[in-house]
Amino acid sequence: MIIVLRPHTPKAAIDEVIAEVSKLGYEPAPIFGVTQTVIAAIGDERTHQNLESLTALPQVESVLRVQKRYKLASRESHPEDTVVDVDGVKIGGGHFVLMAGPCSVESEEQLLSTARSVKAAGATILRGGAYKPRTSPYEFQGLGKEGLRLLELARKETGLKIITEVLSERDVEHVAASADILQIGARNAQNFQLLIECARSGKPILLKRGMSEKIEEWLLAAEYILAHGNPNVLLCERGIRTFETYTRNTLDLAAVAVAKKESHLPVIVDPSQGCGRADLVLALCCGAVALKADGLLVEVHPNPAEAMSDGQQQVDFAAFKELSEMIRPFLAATGRAGW
Amino acid sequence: MIIVLRPHTPKAAIDEVIAEVSKLGYEPAPIFGVTQTVIAAIGDERTHQNLESLTALPQVESVLRVQKRYKLASRESHPEDTVVDVDGVKIGGGHFVLMAGPCSVESEEQLLSTARSVKAAGATILRGGAYKPRTSPYEFQGLGKEGLRLLELARKETGLKIITEVLSERDVEHVAASADILQIGARNAQNFQLLIECARSGKPILLKRGMSEKIEEWLLAAEYILAHGNPNVLLCERGIRTFETYTRNTLDLAAVAVAKKESHLPVIVDPSQGCGRADLVLALCCGAVALKADGLLVEVHPNPAEAMSDGQQQVDFAAFKELSEMIRPFLAATGRAGW
Amino acid sequence: MIIVLRPHTPKAAIDEVIAEVSKLGYEPAPIFGVTQTVIAAIGDERTHQNLESLTALPQVESVLRVQKRYKLASRESHPEDTVVDVDGVKIGGGHFVLMAGPCSVESEEQLLSTARSVKAAGATILRGGAYKPRTSPYEFQGLGKEGLRLLELARKETGLKIITEVLSERDVEHVAASADILQIGARNAQNFQLLIECARSGKPILLKRGMSEKIEEWLLAAEYILAHGNPNVLLCERGIRTFETYTRNTLDLAAVAVAKKESHLPVIVDPSQGCGRADLVLALCCGAVALKADGLLVEVHPNPAEAMSDGQQQVDFAAFKELSEMIRPFLAATGRAGW
Amino acid sequence: MIIVLRPHTPKAAIDEVIAEVSKLGYEPAPIFGVTQTVIAAIGDERTHQNLESLTALPQVESVLRVQKRYKLASRESHPEDTVVDVDGVKIGGGHFVLMAGPCSVESEEQLLSTARSVKAAGATILRGGAYKPRTSPYEFQGLGKEGLRLLELARKETGLKIITEVLSERDVEHVAASADILQIGARNAQNFQLLIECARSGKPILLKRGMSEKIEEWLLAAEYILAHGNPNVLLCERGIRTFETYTRNTLDLAAVAVAKKESHLPVIVDPSQGCGRADLVLALCCGAVALKADGLLVEVHPNPAEAMSDGQQQVDFAAFKELSEMIRPFLAATGRAGW
Repeated sequence: MIIVLRPHTPKAAIDEVIAEVSKLGYEPAPIFGVTQTVIAAIGDERTHQNLESLTALPQVESVLRVQKRYKLASRESHPEDTVVDVDGVKIGGGHFVLMAGPCSVESEEQLLSTARSVKAAGATILRGGAYKPRTSPYEFQGLGKEGLRLLELARKETGLKIITEVLSERDVEHVAASADILQIGARNAQNFQLLIECARSGKPILLKRGMSEKIEEWLLAAEYILAHGNPNVLLCERGIRTFETYTRNTLDLAAVAVAKKESHLPVIVDPSQGCGRADLVLALCCGAVALKADGLLVEVHPNPAEAMSDGQQQVDFAAFKELSEMIRPFLAATGRAGW
Repeated sequence: MIIVLRPHTPKAAIDEVIAEVSKLGYEPAPIFGVTQTVIAAIGDERTHQNLESLTALPQVESVLRVQKRYKLASRESHPEDTVVDVDGVKIGGGHFVLMAGPCSVESEEQLLSTARSVKAAGATILRGGAYKPRTSPYEFQGLGKEGLRLLELARKETGLKIITEVLSERDVEHVAASADILQIGARNAQNFQLLIECARSGKPILLKRGMSEKIEEWLLAAEYILAHGNPNVLLCERGIRTFETYTRNTLDLAAVAVAKKESHLPVIVDPSQGCGRADLVLALCCGAVALKADGLLVEVHPNPAEAMSDGQQQVDFAAFKELSEMIRPFLAATGRAGW
Repeated sequence: MIIVLRPHTPKAAIDEVIAEVSKLGYEPAPIFGVTQTVIAAIGDERTHQNLESLTALPQVESVLRVQKRYKLASRESHPEDTVVDVDGVKIGGGHFVLMAGPCSVESEEQLLSTARSVKAAGATILRGGAYKPRTSPYEFQGLGKEGLRLLELARKETGLKIITEVLSERDVEHVAASADILQIGARNAQNFQLLIECARSGKPILLKRGMSEKIEEWLLAAEYILAHGNPNVLLCERGIRTFETYTRNTLDLAAVAVAKKESHLPVIVDPSQGCGRADLVLALCCGAVALKADGLLVEVHPNPAEAMSDGQQQVDFAAFKELSEMIRPFLAATGRAGW
Repeated sequence: MIIVLRPHTPKAAIDEVIAEVSKLGYEPAPIFGVTQTVIAAIGDERTHQNLESLTALPQVESVLRVQKRYKLASRESHPEDTVVDVDGVKIGGGHFVLMAGPCSVESEEQLLSTARSVKAAGATILRGGAYKPRTSPYEFQGLGKEGLRLLELARKETGLKIITEVLSERDVEHVAASADILQIGARNAQNFQLLIECARSGKPILLKRGMSEKIEEWLLAAEYILAHGNPNVLLCERGIRTFETYTRNTLDLAAVAVAKKESHLPVIVDPSQGCGRADLVLALCCGAVALKADGLLVEVHPNPAEAMSDGQQQVDFAAFKELSEMIRPFLAATGRAGW
């Protein structure tokens, strides 16, 4: 770390900081400028205490980190792309995946018809919420275990793999028994206890970026999963919260490029949450593929106008079929085969 | 709700929307403007389905809500201020409270000395993290149950009530056995399962606003707790995430006035998280009291430079004593007695 | 507009609002719900006074707009794509353009070598700042008129058209004499006097989105130019300010799709400002083309490490050549010819 | 500056950076850590070139500044509070000022009645917009020179000093002839040409913070004015743009404390723009005074419901009188006399 002292700090006050740096386990290396002194603190920032506490001293102006805070998630520690294998469906390292399905599982008819339709269009993984985190307690909260049963039924009939969200540590075990991928939603992006519990299930985990989570924090959340022994993490960009109100969120497509540069983990894009408007989903899918996202997570509903949750951002079967055609040349242009 | 149709929508397409509004359980009342038609959908928006799904129809431009989404948390449903009674310490309705203590419980000596010091300065509730949500898995995660034991010890010695954060549904029972108030942190602000579990404990709950949570969403999170039978909710403004980097967060003091206007629940301000800098804490406390916050939650440490977490935002004993003096005239100016 | 009254507003207070709506020139149409009344105010919201002032009345809870605020910029008023013709170089309506050059014009050698290089790679328009808006008064402020002279020289030698930023109403006349396109930067995105003055020059105008400008506000800024008689506006998305710090700005690629849907004006993307990092520029260009941007504005420098401004986001000649190759298949996939 | 190199950068690549640092005029001081090398570049960051361009080199991971970028605006260069004297009305250094008046000057009757009313309540400076920056070209743009004439009339009758906004370099001369303080609005917060022109007028300048301007950038904008020879700058916090929609902006009251700590310039708070709602203005004024703001800029209108601009955030005469009473104890508590 670098400790920046205030201009014209006297010698004794500089020495105090140097002594504190040593006491906290780093080797201090002071550099004396014309008006300001900086002290480089040499040592592993990940295993030693964070020196930001030194700003509590009046002569310390700021403390700057040097090292990256994540390790297992970093490209440096793992130069090759991670390929996540979901019971035969590969994701990452050139393998592209289309995940699609309704926001919420509402009924057998709704789920099965959607499963057949998205499979015909090229999807290999079916999404569908059984447990729904809703802003208001008065909104539809999902079918729960009955929803999981329907997802299993859809897998049995179509062969699609299943991804579904888990909201509670207590649900991890039985959701993991039904699902092929556990989804951590944006609201739980830094619910570390849930991340750890999911990591222990051994299932692949799709980790959404939080609404106001910096990329560094997102990778550190992935680090929690990796550090608890589960290497099968899919990062998912789903839009961040900004001042713009035309779209529900601002899809940060640059984050796809950043995450793939900084990390070896596959990156999925959720355009449905990312903009909150069905009329923009197709365009954003093309952009995501051009930026080399390893997969798309798209909300599809037989009749969005009557959906029990987030109908405004779900596309219908025809639109999804069109989407699956539209992205093909972009997959080709980025050296991927499609499906 | 109000459904806004696109300009020049033909009659048949208008009728289609009217029919859909009826089907979803509302009474449609169309108003025909010169170029645009709007359809008022009369009915209780909290019990009927959200009509935003209608934007899936091409002729619908937007859907606007009319009703407030929260009910139990609203001032309309409960015009009088709620007073939360924490085992004899009253909060809200003119009762002001000072909560203070270290970010993390680190040791018996650290906690006890802090408890004595903040009590002497006027605090009646001791804060201290036993379970710590940390951005990185390599950072100090708290002492856990040993931390709870030390908090109980501090209560026994000083008579201060205890507030501590709970991170996991599985910890609610034993944290509730040790603490007088359960704290929900910003990262779990929309972890609804945790909110419900805490609600069921029957303990008063301090609910922090999420980093990118709108005031409406914060009140809806409180609504989850109220709707699960626990009326003792303390709202806590702790800063929101913005583009500004001088401060760690942007403390939204207007939100104090908004929350007190929209809701009957007491509002606490956390200036330590709110700015992330010890040198601003005193000034923000004065502002919070002037805006009629019902309490302050302040991080205090015997030696902030060596704190195991967030030393940069913790004040020392002398600064806390000064703070407790500084806010007195502002309490008087807002008709509160102080301690 | 829709005026939402508070629940249980008595008849007399409703009548007061109805009378005020009439007085301000709208036809009031009240709709009585179970607990709340809304009053639709029928009339042209663009020519009548904004009724948001009615929230000054205690019984008014909120006022919602129905109509779009921009007209000339809207797709409804002008269904066909606008094609801007820059002295023979067409932009929009299927015509894609590559604009490139240094952040600042620094010297004849720097500018001419860059011009030759970007032309060879396919650019048809040369960018280069003669007047630079710099955050600090101590930073390089541009060569001014000498910079304009060098840009003219580069045009003469290479045939490239010239785009350069104008910072002051007083400079519009002489900048317009040298440049083919006037650029309005993000800091002046709502400097309406400058917009009007540029509109009057008759030159095509590239209008950057402000750092915290909503899409609606961006289109309304374009409306200022259109309403002052200049139809040749190029919208330019250049990233918005968010909490993320890995990138300098968050490039809002969804805004490209939104702007093209809402408006007939061509949309250009500036990936250099958009992320502030040379290592992400190529990826973002591919994404922008996939989202059907009508052009790219890319910062290119012979030796970015020694650039006098924003070296960290400028690509060198080799990278720009690679970029121009990389985007070809994306142009093809979106039905554009390239160059 | 501190240049952070990537882990395991080889010796030759380190030497290349060291050589570049020397070439750009700094003295390089490398510090070799276990896996990473950092190079401290010793030299005045304000007069030398910004080294951030070095991130163009592949071995450079990041470049961190050490020095503050503003000088004349800093507390270090000018430890005493600046007191701005507006023709006898002192602001700063313990002198508190109440500025009030309508958003827009609409008519003689409107302005004069407001002037008399705010004077009676304790205001010493009258605000009123003659030139209005409006988001849409179809909105009321202000009375222009007629508005200035009315402001002069109000000054003559009441003795109040006049503050009004200037939008264009071309208007500076005649606005400065009528006004006692020139106001720079948020949209022009980084319109440096306008700042320089206003600086040259010699009049005191109230500089609003931009909607997405960091505190550092705000102080650097003030530095433009100071560096052009005008020491009479009033900083004005007026809310920043965030995701919150209940309020129009998020008033950053911590920024008052920060600006007063970092700078010697007086800090004014505009609660009207800051929240965009008349019902919150009084509470925010109390908070601003508690945080030691040197003045308030409040929008007041005889009949807000019919105001030609921003009626929703203007208070009426009775509310302003109440406000002026409410803030007195807070002024006393912060050691100020009031009026």
